[in-house]
Parts: sequence; structure tokens; C-alpha cells
Amino acid sequence: METIQYNLPQDRIPEAWYNIQADLPKPLAPPLHPGTLQPIGPDDLAPLFPMALIMQEVSQERDIEIPDPVRQVYAQWRPSPLFRARRLEKALDTPAKIYYKYEGVSPAGSHKPNTAVAQAYYNKMEGTKRLSTETGAGQWGSSLAMACAFFGLECKVYMVRVSYDQKPYRRALMEAFGASVTASPSIETESGRSILAQFPGTNGSLGIAISEAVEVAAKDPNTKYALGSVLNHVLLHQTVIGLETIEQMALAGDEPDVIVGCTGGGSNFAGLVFPYLGQKIKGQSHARVVAVEPAACPSLTKGHFAYDFGDTSHLTPLVKMHTLGSTFIPPGIHAGGLRYHGMAPLVSHVLDLGLVEATTVQQLDAFAAGIQFARAEGIIPAPEANHAVAGAIREALVAKEEGREKTILFNLCGHGHFDMQSYINYQAGLLENYEYPAEEIAMALAGLPAVG
Amino acid sequence: METIQYNLPQDRIPEAWYNIQADLPKPLAPPLHPGTLQPIGPDDLAPLFPMALIMQEVSQERDIEIPDPVRQVYAQWRPSPLFRARRLEKALDTPAKIYYKYEGVSPAGSHKPNTAVAQAYYNKMEGTKRLSTETGAGQWGSSLAMACAFFGLECKVYMVRVSYDQKPYRRALMEAFGASVTASPSIETESGRSILAQFPGTNGSLGIAISEAVEVAAKDPNTKYALGSVLNHVLLHQTVIGLETIEQMALAGDEPDVIVGCTGGGSNFAGLVFPYLGQKIKGQSHARVVAVEPAACPSLTKGHFAYDFGDTSHLTPLVKMHTLGSTFIPPGIHAGGLRYHGMAPLVSHVLDLGLVEATTVQQLDAFAAGIQFARAEGIIPAPEANHAVAGAIREALVAKEEGREKTILFNLCGHGHFDMQSYINYQAGLLENYEYPAEEIAMALAGLPAVG
Repeated sequence: METIQYNLPQDRIPEAWYNIQADLPKPLAPPLHPGTLQPIGPDDLAPLFPMALIMQEVSQERDIEIPDPVRQVYAQWRPSPLFRARRLEKALDTPAKIYYKYEGVSPAGSHKPNTAVAQAYYNKMEGTKRLSTETGAGQWGSSLAMACAFFGLECKVYMVRVSYDQKPYRRALMEAFGASVTASPSIETESGRSILAQFPGTNGSLGIAISEAVEVAAKDPNTKYALGSVLNHVLLHQTVIGLETIEQMALAGDEPDVIVGCTGGGSNFAGLVFPYLGQKIKGQSHARVVAVEPAACPSLTKGHFAYDFGDTSHLTPLVKMHTLGSTFIPPGIHAGGLRYHGMAPLVSHVLDLGLVEATTVQQLDAFAAGIQFARAEGIIPAPEANHAVAGAIREALVAKEEGREKTILFNLCGHGHFDMQSYINYQAGLLENYEYPAEEIAMALAGLPAVG
Repeated sequence: METIQYNLPQDRIPEAWYNIQADLPKPLAPPLHPGTLQPIGPDDLAPLFPMALIMQEVSQERDIEIPDPVRQVYAQWRPSPLFRARRLEKALDTPAKIYYKYEGVSPAGSHKPNTAVAQAYYNKMEGTKRLSTETGAGQWGSSLAMACAFFGLECKVYMVRVSYDQKPYRRALMEAFGASVTASPSIETESGRSILAQFPGTNGSLGIAISEAVEVAAKDPNTKYALGSVLNHVLLHQTVIGLETIEQMALAGDEPDVIVGCTGGGSNFAGLVFPYLGQKIKGQSHARVVAVEPAACPSLTKGHFAYDFGDTSHLTPLVKMHTLGSTFIPPGIHAGGLRYHGMAPLVSHVLDLGLVEATTVQQLDAFAAGIQFARAEGIIPAPEANHAVAGAIREALVAKEEGREKTILFNLCGHGHFDMQSYINYQAGLLENYEYPAEEIAMALAGLPAVG
């Protein structure tokens, strides 16, 4: 029997997260206060985050210990499996070997619980009673709702109106975990009421939902705010993915020539590749590292590397990142988790340093890849993950053309069980590709703040 | 760190299924031909099933080798994890230890692929081009669709009309795997047309869908029929669950005092408990074994142990089983997989022999248990599996009352990702308990064939 699953026992869950900031040849540009445009300090963030997470945000330590209660929860699904996609290899008739790390085994169905659990834990330790957050597609909201249930925290989720209406099952999952879910914009917050007054009947956006969640956290000393991607501490928590994978690839007796992940805010990509980049910086890995983004929202391939706001309403600090402009509203692709105008500062930084490359995939190619993957491997990927699948298949077909063996590794960051409407639309021929929205992006970029 | 996951490596996937027929103190009553009422032979079943499966149906061998290509596919998710439900134990404040075997890790989300893969394989080996089947809730249909994609078979699914309309996402999953899904009753078959002529606008039923699937298989030499539960060979394939669990409980250094499973057709229950019953028959296990069925469809606790038809239209052979009468239409509980008038002959037989006991759970208690489980363990169970969860919680609370330790083991046979509408309805207070439908069952039982 051929081995297709490379598993580690529970006691091989990493004991520390890997902090790439310790190994960067050039440090990150600091975040700036939206009012003063000066670098912010820990106290500026204290109303929103517990101090442990703020310290992780700026830490330069290489190894940051994972608290035992967090590892204990991780043990529910970690170490997650590494698969060799042998049936997909056969279907593609490629000489390449394809491995994928599968994060859909978490109870919430994606990599998001890796940070949700850690954030809930640190908040609980520092006396937080309630967490507020936003969610688009719902992967993040359901992960935080689950983590809050585990640690006895209340959870308040502002869910983008269009998702709230179109994805009742994601909402039902959050509510099953005990979270309170409100469609955003809502009448519960000033931000929400102000938007509703201006645009009655709006679909909402992630930017608006962030404003609502931040507002309630800022106003209530018992409530803090949690974010599911972009920030350094979020990416840090995801590095368990790559740390485990390095051990599992060793079990497989193999090393990746190319590593592929999809990028929206950047957290699943960073989770897999940062530990490998740590090796690469030290000359211990030769792997090409490829970020795959949707052609409709190409922050890494078409954005500017500049200071910008994290939200549409300009309440957050400014960070230096690849951005399409904070007022850019990405087209309505079904990979809702990739519809973000910016990119994690750390991912932007390693692209700028030449440590990774970036490419785009069109929506129809992403779904075609997902269907091909499902028929070969059984798992139906999330629309976001389809971009990584498409990127990996592209590499495998190049290997076939060139007639040479190559080892491809990608991150299958979540399953698509709550995204089946997008597959129905795809199979019915109702989806379309989106051209690069050049004009809208040019306009949004013209509005970038004049900083740095 | 406390261990909560007991995993086996890929090479510990069982090499043989366990056939309980070899160890039964009294043999099964034979199936009878619906026309002659005489015991049927292999040739009677040849139009519907490949010979390898027909031989497994009647085999008295204890160990039946699992073909390598089947084990190779199993390796995608097997050995499945055994969990210690430590957070649930704490939430219940019980001295009992609770373990659960989790079959939701299969790509289709339940235990059904254990037999779907085997059935697709044997059919492929004997030259079948296409499989036809019925599905209600869709767990079985999506598993067979996946297995057919793996082995290059066409797959035709007749999906009960009401599920077809209410569960578009299950259907989308089958179609993503490449299956053709038709609402039943359909105009494609004589059975379907005849029902539609009689009852235009009917919701359909599993009995009708079976008739359609059997009809197309009987008429087309390239098409065979596949069933997802009830038959001996189906239960046989599920025994990988219990065989792995015995090894995993040994890893945990523990032995079950009580084993719990939910029962509809009987296959997930048999899969976990038959290997333990094999030990029990030899005096090597002392475990109580409890089948949990819905109060609305209580074949084991209220049915007759008698010869009856497997389908409503009386096309199938007669088997001796616990039955509520083949014309009984169970109330519309959300656990669609447990809405069957009969019970697997083997499960009925071991109940009759006193090797297992049976109990019922009401719909609202089942969902309450599911919500409690999700908040403690993260996994949202399928409505069917909620009956096993409720049964296990009941045992844990008895242990608490009695103030004694007890080791409880149950089968969490699938997740509820495609069943969220039922959770929405439950949380909105729209679900109800169903009283035992005494009159309808009495009427259906009065119509039992006068055999045996």
C-alpha cells in the first residue's frame, strides 16, 4: 500500500510558534497612528487587544511558547494531516509529486481556529468577558465562536449583510456555538447607523463590519476585538501549519521544490510558508514560494507597497502593505475570504524582499481546479483554497510539459461544505471571470495617504 | 498535556473486515423470494449486485480480506480518530470517561464511504459501468458519488423529492463528484411514472426511490444497484470502525463499560459494535451495548421481529427483522437517515439474542445533546448522530447520579455541515417531539406478510 497520509502524534504539536520577525534581513516598517502619523505604541492598542497579543505583535523573539491550554485545544485536530495527492497526480498524468497540508480537519473547517483559540485564551487570561469581531464568508466568525465557547467567553459577530442573507448555514454554525450574530451594517452601533442613514439597503462590507466590531470593543471595557488575519500575531499563530509540515515532509522523505498558498489577508499562506522562509533565509531551503491571489483582487501583483488603512472607514492604524487602496471594493467573487484590499504587512514585506513570488488565478479556473481536486481526492475545497489548488495544478502541468520530477506542496486551508452555493452556480455556468478592475483600483490608489 | 486523540498509523488500517455471522450462536434466518417465499440463492440477486458482494452477504468466514485498492482509498481518512471527550466530561461534571470514534473525517462526512468504496471497487472489478442508488438525507448518495468518481464509474442517484428540494447543497456535492441526481419520483422509470400518476406533487419516499434505482439496475446489464445500509455486506464493510476502535481503546489503556450507537438501517451501529460483540460472545468483553433510535421510528423497541419487505413497493426479498411494517411512513424528523421502517437483519438478530439493548430518544433531546456537544467538542454532529450523543450523555449522567466511574464509548458517525437547516429550526423553536405513532404502526404491522 502506498502511503498517502503523513501523520504526527499529538505530542508533536509544536511547543512554540515561529516568529519570522526574528530572522528578517530588514525589519518591518512600524504601524502609524491614524491621527498623528507617528509610530504607535502598545498603549494605543490596549483598548482593543490583550497585552499578550500586543507584545506578540512587536516581538522579535524567534520562538514564542504556545501555552499548554492552547495546545490542549489544538489536540482536537492537530497535528493536521499532510496528504500525498496520488490520485490527483494520476489524473494530471504528471511526473510531479503533490503534497497538501489539510487544515479543513478543524471542527470549524479551516485554519482559522489556530489563531481563534489563542486569541480567546489570552483574552480569557486577561479578564475579557466578550469578544467582538467581523466576518465575511464566515470561516473566521465560526472559528472565533467555537473558541469562545471553549473558553467561556461571549462572542459578538458582525456579519456582512450579503453573507448574512446568503449564508444562513454559516450563521447557524456560529449560533450553535452560542455566538450572537448581527447583520452589518446594524442599528447597534454609531458606525452602522451612520452607514444605514447614508445607504439604506446596502449589502455591507468587511470594512464596515470592522468599524462596528471595533466600535463596540472601544466603548466597552469588558469587550475586546479580535481579527482573523493580516496582523503579525495572527500570522504567528498560524505557523503551527508550516512547523508540522516540515516534520511531515521529513517523514515522507521529501522536500518541496515549490510551496503554494492562496492569499487574501495572508494568514494561511504565512502559516505554511514562514517556517520554510526561515530555512530559506538561512540557506537551508531552496523552495520557490508562490502566493496565489484572485485576478479580481490582486493586491500582491498589482497593488502598491505603501502605508494604508486596514479598513474602509479609516479607524485603524496605517500599516505598510501591498494595497489596492482602502476604498477599493473588490468584485463579488465567491472566494469571500480573498476579497481584501490589502495584504498582511509581513507577507507584503517578504514579497518586497524577494523571498516569495505572486501570481493570479481567475475565478473559473479556480472552480475548475476545485472540481478536479474533489473528484480525485474526495475533499471539496473552500473557494479560497481553490486558488491554491489551481496554483499547484499549474505547477504540476509545467512539470509535465518539462518532463521533470518536482515536489509541490500546498496548503488546503479549508473545506467548502458551507460554500456549496458557489459550486451550484459554477456548475450551472452562472459564474464569470473578472477582468482586472484597473480604473477602480487606480482611483483607490490615487487616494492613498501621503505617508512614508 | 492530556491526551484527547488516539490515532493509529495508516498501516494499522484493518486487513480484513469482521464477519459476525461466523460467531453467532444461532444463524440468521434466510431471506425469502418475494414471489415464491422460498429462500433465495445467489443467482436471484445477480442482476442487482456483483457476485463478490452476494458471496459476502452469505459468507460464514470470520475474516474477509479487504482488497488493497479499497484499503488504499481508506487511507485518505482511516484509521479515523478516537477522541476522549474531556471538555464534554467537564461540562457534564460526570465521573464517567467518554470516548467517541469520529467517522465525520471521511471526505463525504460520514461512515458511509466505508462501504461505498468497497461496493464501487467490486463493481468495477466485475465490469459494471454504472451504479444506481437512492438517497434520502444525502449522506449515502454523496459517499457513493465520491467512490464512483475514484473508480471511474457513472453514478445515478434517485433523491427523495423533499430532500432534493430542501437540501440543494447535498445534491451539489454529489454533482461536484460527477453524479447524476434526479428527484424521486421521476418520469424516468415506470415506478416513478406510476407513483406520479397516482400522487402528483408527492414528496417522495425512500421506498419509492429504492424502487426506481432497482428498476434501472434490473433493466440495464451495465448498471448495478448499491444500498447504503441494512444488508449483511454493508454492515460487514463498516466493521473497520470497531476493529480500529478496539486497538485505539487499548492505546488509551481503557475498556468500554457501555457502547452506544444510533440506529436507522443499522450500519454505523453494527460497524462499531460487531467486533465488540465478537469479543462478548467469547466472554472477552463485558460491555453493555445500546442502540439508540428515534422515538418517532422505534423499530427495535416497538417493532415486530418478523419477515417483511425492505421497501414500500414490495419489490425486494423478504428478510426477518425488527419492523414497524413496510407501509409505515415515519414522521418527518430531521434525522432522515433514521427514518426507516425496518432494521438490518443482523442487528435485529443480535437484539433477539440478547446481545444488545435498545432505547429511544426524542427529537428535541437529540438536538439539545448536539448543541451541548458542539459547544464542548467543537464538532457539530449530524442529526442522526445526535441520537448517539444523547444516549452517551444519558449514560454519563446516570454515572454522575450513581457517583461511579464508567467508560462510555460511542460512534459519532457524521458531521452536520449539510444539515444546518435543522439546527436553525431547532434554535428557532420550530421543531417538535413526536409521540409514538401507535395507530399508524399497528395498521402497518397488521399488514405484515404471513410468513415464517
